Amino acid sequence: MNIRTIRIGVVGLGTVGAALVESLQANAGIIRADVGAEVVIARIAEKDATRRKSIHAPGTVLSLDWRDLVADRDIDIVVELMGGTSAARDLVLASLRAGKHVITANKALLANHWTEVLTEAHKAGRAVGFEASVMAGVPVIHVLQSGLSGHRISAISGILNGTSNFILTRIGENGVDRRQALEEARQKGFCEADPSLDLEGFDAAQKLAILGSLVLGRWLPPQDVHREGIGNLEKEDLLEARNSFGYVLKPLAILKRRATGVEARVQPTFLDKRSPLAEVSREFNALLIESDAAGPITLIGKGAGGAPAASGVLADIVEIARRIRHADSGASVPRLPRPGPVHVLPYDQLESRFFLRFTVCDRPGVLSKIFRCLSSERISIANSEIRNTPDGATGLVYAATYRTHAKAVRKALKTIDVQPALVKRKTLMVPIQE
Amino acid sequence: MNIRTIRIGVVGLGTVGAALVESLQANAGIIRADVGAEVVIARIAEKDATRRKSIHAPGTVLSLDWRDLVADRDIDIVVELMGGTSAARDLVLASLRAGKHVITANKALLANHWTEVLTEAHKAGRAVGFEASVMAGVPVIHVLQSGLSGHRISAISGILNGTSNFILTRIGENGVDRRQALEEARQKGFCEADPSLDLEGFDAAQKLAILGSLVLGRWLPPQDVHREGIGNLEKEDLLEARNSFGYVLKPLAILKRRATGVEARVQPTFLDKRSPLAEVSREFNALLIESDAAGPITLIGKGAGGAPAASGVLADIVEIARRIRHADSGASVPRLPRPGPVHVLPYDQLESRFFLRFTVCDRPGVLSKIFRCLSSERISIANSEIRNTPDGATGLVYAATYRTHAKAVRKALKTIDVQPALVKRKTLMVPIQE
Repeated sequence: MNIRTIRIGVVGLGTVGAALVESLQANAGIIRADVGAEVVIARIAEKDATRRKSIHAPGTVLSLDWRDLVADRDIDIVVELMGGTSAARDLVLASLRAGKHVITANKALLANHWTEVLTEAHKAGRAVGFEASVMAGVPVIHVLQSGLSGHRISAISGILNGTSNFILTRIGENGVDRRQALEEARQKGFCEADPSLDLEGFDAAQKLAILGSLVLGRWLPPQDVHREGIGNLEKEDLLEARNSFGYVLKPLAILKRRATGVEARVQPTFLDKRSPLAEVSREFNALLIESDAAGPITLIGKGAGGAPAASGVLADIVEIARRIRHADSGASVPRLPRPGPVHVLPYDQLESRFFLRFTVCDRPGVLSKIFRCLSSERISIANSEIRNTPDGATGLVYAATYRTHAKAVRKALKTIDVQPALVKRKTLMVPIQE
Repeated sequence: MNIRTIRIGVVGLGTVGAALVESLQANAGIIRADVGAEVVIARIAEKDATRRKSIHAPGTVLSLDWRDLVADRDIDIVVELMGGTSAARDLVLASLRAGKHVITANKALLANHWTEVLTEAHKAGRAVGFEASVMAGVPVIHVLQSGLSGHRISAISGILNGTSNFILTRIGENGVDRRQALEEARQKGFCEADPSLDLEGFDAAQKLAILGSLVLGRWLPPQDVHREGIGNLEKEDLLEARNSFGYVLKPLAILKRRATGVEARVQPTFLDKRSPLAEVSREFNALLIESDAAGPITLIGKGAGGAPAASGVLADIVEIARRIRHADSGASVPRLPRPGPVHVLPYDQLESRFFLRFTVCDRPGVLSKIFRCLSSERISIANSEIRNTPDGATGLVYAATYRTHAKAVRKALKTIDVQPALVKRKTLMVPIQE
C-alpha cells in the first residue's frame, strides 16, 4: 500500500474554519494513525485579511479566491465553509466537476440544492460529506447513512435549533419571560445576527429538509416543511402545561412516514415530561430515530459552535481520507436522489392531540359555548384547567384534546375566535406529541 | 459496475438469528437499493432441528455444521450468532482465513480474543463487524469507528446492562425491593438464564472491554475492568439519595484516560438527577462519549432483544456488502491493535466524590468518632443526613464526601468497620459521578 499525502483545501476562515485548522493540527497524530497517511491543509481561501492573518498555518498557501483551490490539481478534498448559497454553490459544483471530494457545513446550500449537489457528486464519482450541517459534531448523518444501513426509518423527531431550545427551557424552568431569555441567549453567543432564522424555525426547517431528503432518498424542499416559530407562547402557558398537564414545550422538527404521504413540520410541541426529548434542555440538540427493528434511538449533543461544527467536518475529512488512502471511494459516492417531489401532507391532515389556550370573557355561558363549538367538530377534551386572571374579567381555559385532525381544531377555533363575546384574543393551538 | 449477488452465511438460529432472517427478508427492497446488489442468505448452519424447522428461508441451504459455510467459496460474509467462545472463535478465525468478512454479536468472544480476532482480520484484509455486540442496534460502534473519526476520545460512560438498569430504576422510582424488581425483570424476559452475569457486572465489563479496546486502539481485557455488582444497595438508600441528595443510582461503565493510565470500571454510581444518563431508565441503555472537540454526545436506545440485536447485524451486513459491491473493502479492514496491555489504574487511585452509608449504633460519641476517622484521612464531608431506624437503637448516617481518593475512603472505612461499638454492618461506599 503506497503511503501518500492527502491534501485539503479550506474555503472560509470564520469560527468553524479557524477551529478546523486548529483541530487538524492538534489531532495530526491521531489522524495520521487513523488514515494511514498524512492529511494536510494545502490551501486556504479567505478574502478577509484580518482572518487570514489570525491563522497560524505554516506550509499552507493562502489565496484570496476559491477558484485557486479548484484549479489546484493536488487538492483531494475541498471544505466549503464560506456560507451563503450562491458562490458556495459554484464552489461545490466546480470542485466536484474537477474531481475533488467535497465537505460542507452549509445547511442552506444543501437544503435548497440537494438534488443538484448530490447528482453532481454521483456523476463525478465523488463523496459529499455534510455531517456538520445538522447538529454540528453529533454524528446524526453518519448514523442515518451507515449506522442504520438497511433499516426502514419510519420517523425522526428532533430538537435541531439550540437557540429556541435554550429560550423555551429558560422560560419553562425558571419562569423568566421571553425577552429576558432571548437576551440571555444573545449574551451566551447562541443567536445568529438575525435571530428570526432561529426563532421562526427557518434554521430547523433547513436541517429537517436535509435529514428528510436523506431518509426518504428524495429531495424534501425546506419550504415544504410546515413551520411555526416559538413566538406565541407565554411563560404562564408553559408553567401551566408543566404543572397541571405534565407537558414540556420543545421546539420540535418532525418527519413521519404516513400511508398517504409524509408529515414534515417544525413547531413548538408539547411532550410528556418523561419523553426522552423532554429532558434535552438549554442549548442542547437531539434527534430521535424510529426504525423498524432497532427501536427508538436518541442522539444528544451540542448542535452549534465553532469547535463542535469543526468536529463534524473533521470526521468527514478522516472518513473520506481513509477511502482515498485505500483507493476505494466507490461506496461513499452518494446514490442518485430519486426524481420528483416528496408528497408532504398538508398540515390540516395532521392527526394529533392538541393543547389549547382560550383567553375567555369571564361571563356565564361562555364555557358551554366554547365546548359546544369543539364538540360540533367531534373534538373531545381529555382534561382542562380553568384559571382567572387577577382582574377577574378574563379567564384562561387550558384544554388538552384527544386525538383529532388539525383541520377540525382549526375550524372550531375559526368559529370561536371571531366572537368577541367569547374570547379576547386568538386561541393558542399546540400539538402534543405522543 | 457489475451487479452481483452478495451471499451471507448465518451460524446459529437463536432469537437474534431468527430475527435477522426475518428482517433481511422484510427489508430486501431497501437493502437492494442501498447496496446496489442482491443480498441473500445462502446458507444457515444450526444443529437444533426444531430451530431449523421454524425458519422459512426458501432458497437457503441448511447445514448442521458451520464448517460447511467456511468451505463454501461463494459465501462472502459469515455471521456468527452461535455464542460461546470456543467453537465461535474457531468459526470466526477460520472464516477470516478463508477470505470471508465476519460479523459477530458475540461480546464474550470479542472481549476475550480482541487482539487475535482483529489481527487475523487485518492480515486477511477482511472486515469484522460487531455493532450488535454492544447496545444491540444502537450504533455506538459505528459512531466510535467513523462518526467521530480523527477525534481523541477522552472518556466514555454508559449504562450497558439493561437488566441492572431496570432493577435499579424500579427500586429507586417505585420503592419496590430488589427481589420484586428482579422477578419483574425476569417476567419481562430481560434476564439471562444466570442473572449474575447481568447483576454482578460481567456483561457490562465485557462490553466496556470492547468499547475501551476500540477507543484505546489496544486490548483492554475484561478482567482488568474493576467490577462491582448492584447487590449491596437497599431501596432505603436509593430513596434517601434521591430525596435528600438529588442523586440517582445507575449501573455505570466508565472508561477515562488519565495522565497516569486508564480508569476502567463497572459499578453502581450516583449521578446528579439532571445528568443526561440519570434520565435513562428501565431497560434502556446509553453511552456518553466525551471527545476533545465535539462536546459530550449521548446515544440512547434499547440494548438487548432479538430484533434490536439483529438490527445491529443488519447494519453491518449492508455496510460490508456496499464495500464488496464497490470492490473497495480496504478502508473497513481493522487496524492492527497496538501490542501490550492497557495500563489500568488500580481502583484505589480513583479520585471521586463518594456516597457513604454508615449503619451506626445509636450511642453518644459515635458520630464524632466516625467523622474523626474520616477527617484523619483528609476526607471532607459535603453534606450528611442522619436517620434513626424505628427500633431507636440503630442510626443511618448518609454522607457525600468532597473529591478524594478511593484509597483514603477505604482506609477510613477499614478502621471504622472493625469497631462493633461504632457500626453494625459494613459501610456502603458508592462513587458519585461528576
